[in-house]
Formats: sequence, C-alpha cells, structure tokens
Amino acid sequence: MKNYREELWFNIPGRRAFINITPKVENALAQSGITEGLILVNAMHITASVFINDDEPGLHQDYEKWLEELAPHAPLSRYKHNNTGEDNGDAHHKRQIMGREVVVAVTGGQLDFGPWEQIFYGEFDGGRKKRVLVKIIGE
Amino acid sequence: MKNYREELWFNIPGRRAFINITPKVENALAQSGITEGLILVNAMHITASVFINDDEPGLHQDYEKWLEELAPHAPLSRYKHNNTGEDNGDAHHKRQIMGREVVVAVTGGQLDFGPWEQIFYGEFDGGRKKRVLVKIIGE
Amino acid sequence: MKNYREELWFNIPGRRAFINITPKVENALAQSGITEGLILVNAMHITASVFINDDEPGLHQDYEKWLEELAPHAPLSRYKHNNTGEDNGDAHHKRQIMGREVVVAVTGGQLDFGPWEQIFYGEFDGGRKKRVLVKIIGE
Repeated sequence: MKNYREELWFNIPGRRAFINITPKVENALAQSGITEGLILVNAMHITASVFINDDEPGLHQDYEKWLEELAPHAPLSRYKHNNTGEDNGDAHHKRQIMGREVVVAVTGGQLDFGPWEQIFYGEFDGGRKKRVLVKIIGE
Repeated sequence: MKNYREELWFNIPGRRAFINITPKVENALAQSGITEGLILVNAMHITASVFINDDEPGLHQDYEKWLEELAPHAPLSRYKHNNTGEDNGDAHHKRQIMGREVVVAVTGGQLDFGPWEQIFYGEFDGGRKKRVLVKIIGE
Repeated sequence: MKNYREELWFNIPGRRAFINITPKVENALAQSGITEGLILVNAMHITASVFINDDEPGLHQDYEKWLEELAPHAPLSRYKHNNTGEDNGDAHHKRQIMGREVVVAVTGGQLDFGPWEQIFYGEFDGGRKKRVLVKIIGE
C-alpha cells in the first residue's frame, strides 16, 4: 500500500469565499504516483468546508445567501460561542451544512469524477492562514 | 490491496425520489471479492445525493417536505444559478443537506451496518440518466 | 494491508447530547498498530451523528438550539414518520444536518488533525444503548 500526504494553504482576505481546489488536488494525486485507491480532502479548521459541487459563480452567490439565511453572522449575540470572544459562531454552523471533507475514488491515476464535479474550499471565517489536508492511500 | 469499481445507473421519471440501493451495493461488494476494507458510494452528479437512513416511506415524505422548505424549487428567480437557463438551483442546495457520499466499512465480506442502516440514492433533478459510483478498496 | 474494527457503546440518559469521543478513537488507533491509512468513524444508528468540530460548550448549546429550529421535535404530528409509533422524526432530520460519519487521515500513528479538530458523537434520540463503529485500514 502506498500513501501520500500534502497540505494546501489558504489566506482568504475577506470573511467568506469558495475556491476551486481541483487542480491542486489533481497535482497532489500526480505527485503520489497512486493509480487505484481513495483520496481524502478535508478542512483542517472547524470554520471551513471542503465540498464537491458546480463551478458556477451564480450558484456560489446562492450558497452565500442561503447559508446566511440558515445561520446569520449577525447579531453576534445570537451565538453563545461568541461569548468566548470569537465572532465566528455562524461559521461553525455554515461548515456543518457544507461538510468537512470529501472522499474521492482514484481510478487509472485520475480523480474518478462525473462530468461537473469540482472540489471547493469553503471559507467562512477568513483573514488568516488556514489549511486543507490531502491524504491518498492505494497502490 | 484489491480494488473494485462499478457504476449504478438511474433514470428517475419525476424530479425527485429516494431509491434504496443497498442490494446493488451488496452485489458490487460480492463481485469484488473484498472481505476487509472500505467502500465509497457517491453520486457522480451535483444535483443528487447518496445517504444512509431508514427505509420508511413516511420519513421519505418528511424529507421531501423539509428539503422543499429549506430550499424551495420555486420561484425559479430565487436562484441566480437559474439565470444560466437551468431550473435546478434548488437541487444543488438539497444535495448539500443530504450529502454527496457515504463511506461504509467492509467486515467479513459484508457491509458493516447497524440494524436499520440502508443506502439511498436521492434524486433532486431527475428525468435523465444519472450515475452513482461504487469504489471498494481492501483485501 | 492491516485492518482494525472496534465498536464504541453509548447509553445517553436524555434525548440529546454531544460527547467528545476523540480519546476513544485515539485508543482504537493505538490498538490497531496502524501508522499510515484512513480511519472511518460512523454512527451505526440513523438517529445519531458523528462529526468533527470544536469542544466548546457554548457552541454545543448553539447547535442544540439551531437544530431544534431547523427540525423541531414537537409537535410530533409534524412528521409522518411518527405515525409508525415513533417520536423521533426530528432526530432523523437533525442527523442529516450533522452527518453520519467522518473519515480521518492517519499519519505517523496519529489522527492527522488541525489544531481544534475533535470528534463528537451526536445523540438525537437517547435513552437506550447505541453504537459507533471505528474501522481503520492501512499499514
């Protein structure tokens, strides 16, 4: 069994963003030399997500609006978590909707994807350096 | 390490449905000859889900109503994504709630399940052929 | 390839709770002797979750309130599922928001975690014995 590990680093200027990380994951897979197996891609921070959906800017605006409806940032007093001095209570909730991780099949040395699948980093509490982990096992 | 890959195809007549795919996944596992490992089952389309829950028709009606409350199909103008000519903005949101994939343990050649766990394909934008990927690694 | 399997048992007195199970998962990993691979941790019941977030009591109170807003327990007549004689229709919905499982990388014999990642069992229909599965594959 072979295994490979790589960290992807991000420093998003604003509070929230969706970044297509598919090329970075494909590059990690190429580096690994693994052709059959599973690849795990997960946010290493609890106010960010990794998820698979469409690379369409309108959809990303829809997600932003929807997540803000489901778990509004303000008022900060909405979240007991913010009593700790944080202002990111909403980010911990948005992350649960969008998910922590994806697991993708590796077949023939490629990400085994349907026609529109792309991997995104979802930042909900930016303005600082944060990481995504790529771990690949297989042969 | 052994690996196995199979695609399951669906063509749901209406817009939405939940289909129990556990027997198909069990059949793929039997074909693989793998007795210890992990099995990944994921929607290959971004307006569909694979999830594990109860095979109870009342619950599925509850999910349908709840998802329609959280991310209504109409009015289409609710979603910028629909400005691309699509009418499936809601489906991209419903899929995020229900999830893209499940990872299930394989033990003694069986899906290592609790008493009520069943695997479902969740279609949110049907009327055409769509796929689920089953990838198994182990020995 | 090595593999390891362990069940974690819980009997939560009340209806709902979040329990930090990271030490139990770390113990399973140590027992396995696996140093590179993937670890799957999943609820074996369909009214419970396993998820990764922050071990902060205020946040857990926020989650409790938020999940009750998104999928209220009462009135029981809200859910067709409760016509089966159950009163846990809400729990099947809360579990979908928080998720069934996590997959975590194993690197150097440790859970390959960011600074605040902790694994939680989320109980939404307690008062009886329920299980979490830990399955580890690797070498």
